[in-house]
Amino acid sequence: MKIVVDAMGGDHAPLAAVQGALDAHRIHGVDIVLVGRTEALQDCMKQINITELPAGVELKEATEVVEICDDPATAFKKKKDSSLTVGMQMVKDGEGDAFVSAGSTGALLAGATLLVKRIRGIRRAALCPIIPVFGGKALLCDCGANAECTSEYLLQFAYLANFYAKRVLGVESPRIGLLNIGAEPSKGDSLRHEVFALLTEAKEAGRLNFVGNIEANDALMGGADVIVADGFAGNIMLKTVEGSAKFMLKELKKAFYSNTKSKIGALLIKDSLGEMRKMLDPSEVGGTAFLGISKPIIKAHGSSDAHAFCNAILRAKEYVESGLIADIETHIADMKVETIGEKTQMPS
Amino acid sequence: MKIVVDAMGGDHAPLAAVQGALDAHRIHGVDIVLVGRTEALQDCMKQINITELPAGVELKEATEVVEICDDPATAFKKKKDSSLTVGMQMVKDGEGDAFVSAGSTGALLAGATLLVKRIRGIRRAALCPIIPVFGGKALLCDCGANAECTSEYLLQFAYLANFYAKRVLGVESPRIGLLNIGAEPSKGDSLRHEVFALLTEAKEAGRLNFVGNIEANDALMGGADVIVADGFAGNIMLKTVEGSAKFMLKELKKAFYSNTKSKIGALLIKDSLGEMRKMLDPSEVGGTAFLGISKPIIKAHGSSDAHAFCNAILRAKEYVESGLIADIETHIADMKVETIGEKTQMPS
Repeated sequence: MKIVVDAMGGDHAPLAAVQGALDAHRIHGVDIVLVGRTEALQDCMKQINITELPAGVELKEATEVVEICDDPATAFKKKKDSSLTVGMQMVKDGEGDAFVSAGSTGALLAGATLLVKRIRGIRRAALCPIIPVFGGKALLCDCGANAECTSEYLLQFAYLANFYAKRVLGVESPRIGLLNIGAEPSKGDSLRHEVFALLTEAKEAGRLNFVGNIEANDALMGGADVIVADGFAGNIMLKTVEGSAKFMLKELKKAFYSNTKSKIGALLIKDSLGEMRKMLDPSEVGGTAFLGISKPIIKAHGSSDAHAFCNAILRAKEYVESGLIADIETHIADMKVETIGEKTQMPS
Repeated sequence: MKIVVDAMGGDHAPLAAVQGALDAHRIHGVDIVLVGRTEALQDCMKQINITELPAGVELKEATEVVEICDDPATAFKKKKDSSLTVGMQMVKDGEGDAFVSAGSTGALLAGATLLVKRIRGIRRAALCPIIPVFGGKALLCDCGANAECTSEYLLQFAYLANFYAKRVLGVESPRIGLLNIGAEPSKGDSLRHEVFALLTEAKEAGRLNFVGNIEANDALMGGADVIVADGFAGNIMLKTVEGSAKFMLKELKKAFYSNTKSKIGALLIKDSLGEMRKMLDPSEVGGTAFLGISKPIIKAHGSSDAHAFCNAILRAKEYVESGLIADIETHIADMKVETIGEKTQMPS
């Protein structure tokens, strides 16, 4: 298996990308293509005392870099020799099995959609992060790729994440919850009512284990394996989880350092807090899958360090091995909604 | 000042309501009307060893109770002799200055809107909780009363919460942030684009201190005093904060009890954690204001204990004293948006 890595994307690129990719090669046994300015990549290797490329690791020259200030919708086209475009083109052409990038989410989404292309029948690609919930993990789909959604998009997000939860998280019959502002079917806006009806039909047909509407607090207590959301609400939830964790860890630190007694106490519980910190550390997951694209594309966090890059590459490996894309292609007929005027209906 | 309290609403009513109201009477010096089944209320007083009503506390008979199973939209009308309807009617008729209830949010909203009525010119009432953020507090408006919103509603929510932040939180020039999935003006859906334009106009006219779009994580780090949201996104944010806090406190507890060393450590830092727990405890705030109604209406949490009821009554007292409703009435002309066909424009 060969993973193509955008070595120039992210706040700590190229060093973190190079180091993380070499770690992933060693630990997870995947071949690697590092895409970027060859000279810069060689400099990085010198910095970490690697004089020769290990077997199974290669460099691919790309002279340009997509910057944060570039227009995300057009960057991949305008900068044809960017690490992002060159890397995605390789995956599209079958010269690699998956693409990992910590660069601009918008540029990656545009490139994935317009260059690599969506799976036939899928209306929109979705960002599907693995988030920590009490007692385990859940998928949140979509979390920001699509600010405006139709009911068909949300039905498709449910299927995409359902197969991902089965194949990658190993959940046999993933519990699908529709993120809403109350549990009753009448809750929420008209989009939620339409999606509730579509997911109920999918449940009755034995296709999805739809458990109904779920509120954000219940989702965080582990009430669903898949949380289906439009990209706006999903992003609000994801960023609120991030913000709450940061806020609470800061308050915790303040409490720990408030006096001598608490400082001693903090020393004694430090080790036991390790697991909680690890659970809340985004670099442990490392990467978020763009579901619905015809090849595995993984978005690493912009602030990824080497450890996060290494984990993002592991996510890419799992994705390639999962058979997820074939699953989606096989079931695409279930994910279609016929739109008649203003009304949305399932095909009969 | 006289606060009317729905003594029958909430999971721990009527005992928690009676006890909390008597505490508020004693501590905060407000007169109280307890609305509910007189016999049940007298039983509660016996339970807490009060044989005679203190001066300034009275009972008002209401034979019915709005239950969770009642249709929220019609409950206040169908149960004319419910504590909710009788209490709101008193406030409407000037027999009390504010109404506090821990009953059904939907029934309270419907009653407030249709019986007490909105301030003239206000399109929708909004729930505006005070939420903890790093270094202080912020207002989140709306957080669930309106799942579907127009840009005018959101402009009005910004003004309502702006005056509330000034008058009740004492912030001189509240920083108004529009909850969005990115900071740039181009981020989000078409509703956010419209509201961004309206808030920018209000800023340029010197009416609001609009600080732009704000992401949920930045809002939780204290980036705005007022977070403007549609009721769907606002509710997702609020419930995610609640869920994250619960989740992390559970994980913290797990870490504390994991071994002997950590247990000793936990004992030593217990006192220092008090402030953090207090900050995250919803009963400390106690009540959420329904802004935009012509009289002060405060929603207490359904699970309110006596302490939460007492604090909700304090919120009602602050609201009455604030002069907030007069503020809104004076500035109502600034909050109007003329709708021309599909396009939303400010009046010239």
